[in-house]
Amino acid sequence: MTDVFDHPWLGGLFADPDMGALWSPEAQLSGMRAFEAAWSRALGQDNSEAAARAIEAMEFDLADLRAGTAQDGVVVPRLVAQMKAAAGAPVHKGATSQDVIDSATALAMRDTLALLDTRLAALVEALTDLDMRFGTRPLMGRTRMQAATEITVHDRIAPWLLPLLTHRHRLAELRPRVAVVQIGGASGDRAGLRPGMVEDVAAALGLGAPPRAWHAMRDGVAEFAGFLSLVSGTLGKIGQDIALMAQQGISEIALSGGGGSSAMPHKQNPVGAELLVTLARFNAVQLSAVHLALVHEQERSGTAWALEWMVLPQMAQATGRALVVARTLAGQVQRMG
Amino acid sequence: MTDVFDHPWLGGLFADPDMGALWSPEAQLSGMRAFEAAWSRALGQDNSEAAARAIEAMEFDLADLRAGTAQDGVVVPRLVAQMKAAAGAPVHKGATSQDVIDSATALAMRDTLALLDTRLAALVEALTDLDMRFGTRPLMGRTRMQAATEITVHDRIAPWLLPLLTHRHRLAELRPRVAVVQIGGASGDRAGLRPGMVEDVAAALGLGAPPRAWHAMRDGVAEFAGFLSLVSGTLGKIGQDIALMAQQGISEIALSGGGGSSAMPHKQNPVGAELLVTLARFNAVQLSAVHLALVHEQERSGTAWALEWMVLPQMAQATGRALVVARTLAGQVQRMG
Amino acid sequence: MTDVFDHPWLGGLFADPDMGALWSPEAQLSGMRAFEAAWSRALGQDNSEAAARAIEAMEFDLADLRAGTAQDGVVVPRLVAQMKAAAGAPVHKGATSQDVIDSATALAMRDTLALLDTRLAALVEALTDLDMRFGTRPLMGRTRMQAATEITVHDRIAPWLLPLLTHRHRLAELRPRVAVVQIGGASGDRAGLRPGMVEDVAAALGLGAPPRAWHAMRDGVAEFAGFLSLVSGTLGKIGQDIALMAQQGISEIALSGGGGSSAMPHKQNPVGAELLVTLARFNAVQLSAVHLALVHEQERSGTAWALEWMVLPQMAQATGRALVVARTLAGQVQRMG
Amino acid sequence: MTDVFDHPWLGGLFADPDMGALWSPEAQLSGMRAFEAAWSRALGQDNSEAAARAIEAMEFDLADLRAGTAQDGVVVPRLVAQMKAAAGAPVHKGATSQDVIDSATALAMRDTLALLDTRLAALVEALTDLDMRFGTRPLMGRTRMQAATEITVHDRIAPWLLPLLTHRHRLAELRPRVAVVQIGGASGDRAGLRPGMVEDVAAALGLGAPPRAWHAMRDGVAEFAGFLSLVSGTLGKIGQDIALMAQQGISEIALSGGGGSSAMPHKQNPVGAELLVTLARFNAVQLSAVHLALVHEQERSGTAWALEWMVLPQMAQATGRALVVARTLAGQVQRMG
Repeated sequence: MTDVFDHPWLGGLFADPDMGALWSPEAQLSGMRAFEAAWSRALGQDNSEAAARAIEAMEFDLADLRAGTAQDGVVVPRLVAQMKAAAGAPVHKGATSQDVIDSATALAMRDTLALLDTRLAALVEALTDLDMRFGTRPLMGRTRMQAATEITVHDRIAPWLLPLLTHRHRLAELRPRVAVVQIGGASGDRAGLRPGMVEDVAAALGLGAPPRAWHAMRDGVAEFAGFLSLVSGTLGKIGQDIALMAQQGISEIALSGGGGSSAMPHKQNPVGAELLVTLARFNAVQLSAVHLALVHEQERSGTAWALEWMVLPQMAQATGRALVVARTLAGQVQRMG
Repeated sequence: MTDVFDHPWLGGLFADPDMGALWSPEAQLSGMRAFEAAWSRALGQDNSEAAARAIEAMEFDLADLRAGTAQDGVVVPRLVAQMKAAAGAPVHKGATSQDVIDSATALAMRDTLALLDTRLAALVEALTDLDMRFGTRPLMGRTRMQAATEITVHDRIAPWLLPLLTHRHRLAELRPRVAVVQIGGASGDRAGLRPGMVEDVAAALGLGAPPRAWHAMRDGVAEFAGFLSLVSGTLGKIGQDIALMAQQGISEIALSGGGGSSAMPHKQNPVGAELLVTLARFNAVQLSAVHLALVHEQERSGTAWALEWMVLPQMAQATGRALVVARTLAGQVQRMG
Repeated sequence: MTDVFDHPWLGGLFADPDMGALWSPEAQLSGMRAFEAAWSRALGQDNSEAAARAIEAMEFDLADLRAGTAQDGVVVPRLVAQMKAAAGAPVHKGATSQDVIDSATALAMRDTLALLDTRLAALVEALTDLDMRFGTRPLMGRTRMQAATEITVHDRIAPWLLPLLTHRHRLAELRPRVAVVQIGGASGDRAGLRPGMVEDVAAALGLGAPPRAWHAMRDGVAEFAGFLSLVSGTLGKIGQDIALMAQQGISEIALSGGGGSSAMPHKQNPVGAELLVTLARFNAVQLSAVHLALVHEQERSGTAWALEWMVLPQMAQATGRALVVARTLAGQVQRMG
Repeated sequence: MTDVFDHPWLGGLFADPDMGALWSPEAQLSGMRAFEAAWSRALGQDNSEAAARAIEAMEFDLADLRAGTAQDGVVVPRLVAQMKAAAGAPVHKGATSQDVIDSATALAMRDTLALLDTRLAALVEALTDLDMRFGTRPLMGRTRMQAATEITVHDRIAPWLLPLLTHRHRLAELRPRVAVVQIGGASGDRAGLRPGMVEDVAAALGLGAPPRAWHAMRDGVAEFAGFLSLVSGTLGKIGQDIALMAQQGISEIALSGGGGSSAMPHKQNPVGAELLVTLARFNAVQLSAVHLALVHEQERSGTAWALEWMVLPQMAQATGRALVVARTLAGQVQRMG
């Protein structure tokens, strides 16, 4: 089993290749490379441009990076050593591990938000289309899983759709808080950096330039994680509703392409609908870990930081996958009401 | 033990009377009473004003409310029955349980945000004052709990203070999403309500008037809970830092008024600092529950809704208490660096 | 709202008076009183018996205890001061705060296990009775919420019932690990205690006498919490199944005494079934907090210890209440299959 | 980033190759293959032995398994189809997806327990050795992170070591509850299986033969997960203590081989100690998810089951890795006290 998002067969259920790519080791390495190249250029020394180009073109010795991470707890010392060897010049001068790793994470968060925004818009469209097709049909309203009064399909779909619009507003609000470069220098105080250094690196990376390093201020990361779980939670409600509607005896929805069973080949299972509930619960639980990591002691907590590494990429993938599944489900609806 | 926020002696550590009052049964009852009075007035029938006044003036039979909740799962049927008897007229006509309870919760959330905002501002001031007094003093920067390079006290305080400013921005952004009336009618579709009804009730309560009921859209509640945990998480970092600074052998801070020990009367314990960490972890864990409640099936989930009831008031109190404790701690600082 | 277990009307849904009593401030005080009396007697000094009797008979000044807790972070220093004044003799000599508070908690855990065991047995009986009445009737087996192959009611009930038997075995296994006295002395090393002291105090309290203090070894507490959540989780499955069976259109169960609705007086809601799911999810989330408290630094962590206080009594009450509700539900079943 | 346990460089910090192997896709496939071969033999038909050998020898088409999982939500339908094609005979007759997948998981849990038991014993030995070397040295006892009274190094080590012994007892108790075959047939009632079938398959796999299928009784899985978190929590306390002891200004421990820093090459960081805290918190959070999965509706919940898949392998790896790291740390101790 191990990682369901990158698994020979469970990947068929859980994998989100586009989102996975944003949080992959390759993307992480690419982000750190971009940071170091931008940093080198921003240093503005004689050999800076050459060093930056060397950084951009070099290959990495992954076994060495792994050995270094095992020893140092972070990859950056060895990464920088390899870069120095490739560049034949000082690189990373005045930067620290968090600057490199967190800036790469900021790039991943920024790109994740862009991907989610596109998918949220697409899902809004798909649900709007469902509403156009079936919205006026009658549906039994259900409270506490019991029939209540008659509503319309529109009344069921609206609580699926409206939060997605709000999520897009939330996304726009939090984006400038998380798509920001991390630059603090050795102990986070930006001591010894030239004026404009932060802005130059930020501009090169397409990130915002915050007034201070956020080494030990993880509220942006936690807010980002909270947003992911808000989105997957909304989609979990859609999944739960669809799974309940699809029950025999209720039959308020007809879906094409449900899953089969090894024992009963003709049974149609609402696999995607159930998966949305699973992903929502998964993220709701993971969110605790990222909020626990807000207690990030002193200038850098190895403990809290590593907890983010364990959880954040999975939350992003769970959210990304949920949006794909929800849109697929919307497309499979043949009847509602 | 039971509820630490309302406990004969643990309350000395955990109680936040002002915040507790906002989520107390009395406040809840007051909120539901206000909703029903506003609803009655908005119905605009002959006897509406008289009914509203009767609702505003009546006493409730709590034992009957308890018996009703035990049977119905919500208090509203009995509450309304008592109101009808007191008013001698129809009340609650066309409203449903969620309209009443959630509107009262919206009032509590609105008032909580106001209280938190005031306290955030006060804490910003107290930390700014600390920064003025001690900010220029040298302090050993610590990464991974090890001495790194020398920084200043200002560099330690800044990551305590800056997120508080951001939290105030977040609060302003989310307030209009949560301080909104809940009106949906029996199955949430507002069927049969007169035009302007929602706006009139909202105005009477001092809440926003959203375009639809949010019966089954709990993203506002989850966002509110996430905000609470962001705040308490930031304060947990302050507490963790202070507890570490206060260690003998480190001694980077001197506090007045720490706690004693039954075995060692002269020992000074950083009780408040530790409490901030506890409250941060508590909220980080509780947040999962509120996000799980996003999977709110169909038009009303008794399951998910009751989970919010169990957790939300405690999260608010933990956050409120943490702000009080943090400000007290700031006032106890006699030396930093 | 605040504490749902002790709330004027929500208590109708959540309160478990018997379990609440085991974790109440009164029980806590009684446990601490019993410890200090036993301790005094075990000291075996001239005035020990008199001091013990004074401790057993005295009244406490709760306002003073609260003020002390606010200052010291624990109640014990003031508690002991009041006892000394009442006894007119030294009490608590050589004990520390954790000895007192944790021994009282051990008593609560022991009594909780006894109560749960009785209720587990009663629920086994009630479910066995259901099985006798309806077990041979046909029922549609459902996988992924879809009709699969026909089973019997017995096949649905067995997975409700069998884990309860296993839980009773688990309970018997863990009881000797948690129903143990806490005695460590000032720094947990039992320095200066006379031989037999621990055994005497343990015997007086009806607790086991472990070879060392468990001040900083919280695995017993975490195992206890895990057991609570295993029980409530099993009951949550029962609740979820019943709520699904009770749906109109499915109608695989008929219950007497379901809850009503403010808008639809004749609707019958499976309130108890939903509550079981809520309580299961609540405990599953809380369990994280108690496991986080395993990271109990050094000889005593104010942080981790206080987190247990916040969560443990609620988990016990949620579990106790769930057992009561499950048994009530079993008694309300008029038809299955 | 993605999966830290299987990552080009973060694997240097998080990877546990031995434990990873037990939960790998290869192990999962091997477990399912073993189940189907044993099942085929137990069917005892003319061609059963030949079919079993074909199953044992065949190659799988992973792309097809992935496509099948995407459609069906489980791998088994396609897995069985491939097996049928390879065997040229009916296989899996009367079994269902859960029988196959959960039996493979039971094998992984059994082997995990064996690996953990060995490592627990080794860590007990390593800590006992530390105690022999340094146990009599004086150490300042610390409560609430403040110096209390002097204790010995033995008093610090004992709460690290003793719970490990208890964990071995717990492991022995729970092993027969989780190392059990899953056999229920299509809807979990074992309808149509010949007498002795379950026992024969169990014996072939080296698993226990429970009286019923545990398709919808997930208490064994949740208990297993709780055990993992108890172990990693104990190790988290060790890590937290060591990180605190290693602080400059405290210096109660000297370690060889700590990690370096990109900005300060000579700084020694207690990387392993911090990692233990991270892994403990990670597992404490994940545990919620497995307990949430106890609410496993009806005969099979796609939702709850998939949540276990997401979390269980990671918890096992976090626990396994923590034991390796703790033992390494113990070996790095050059001085305590």
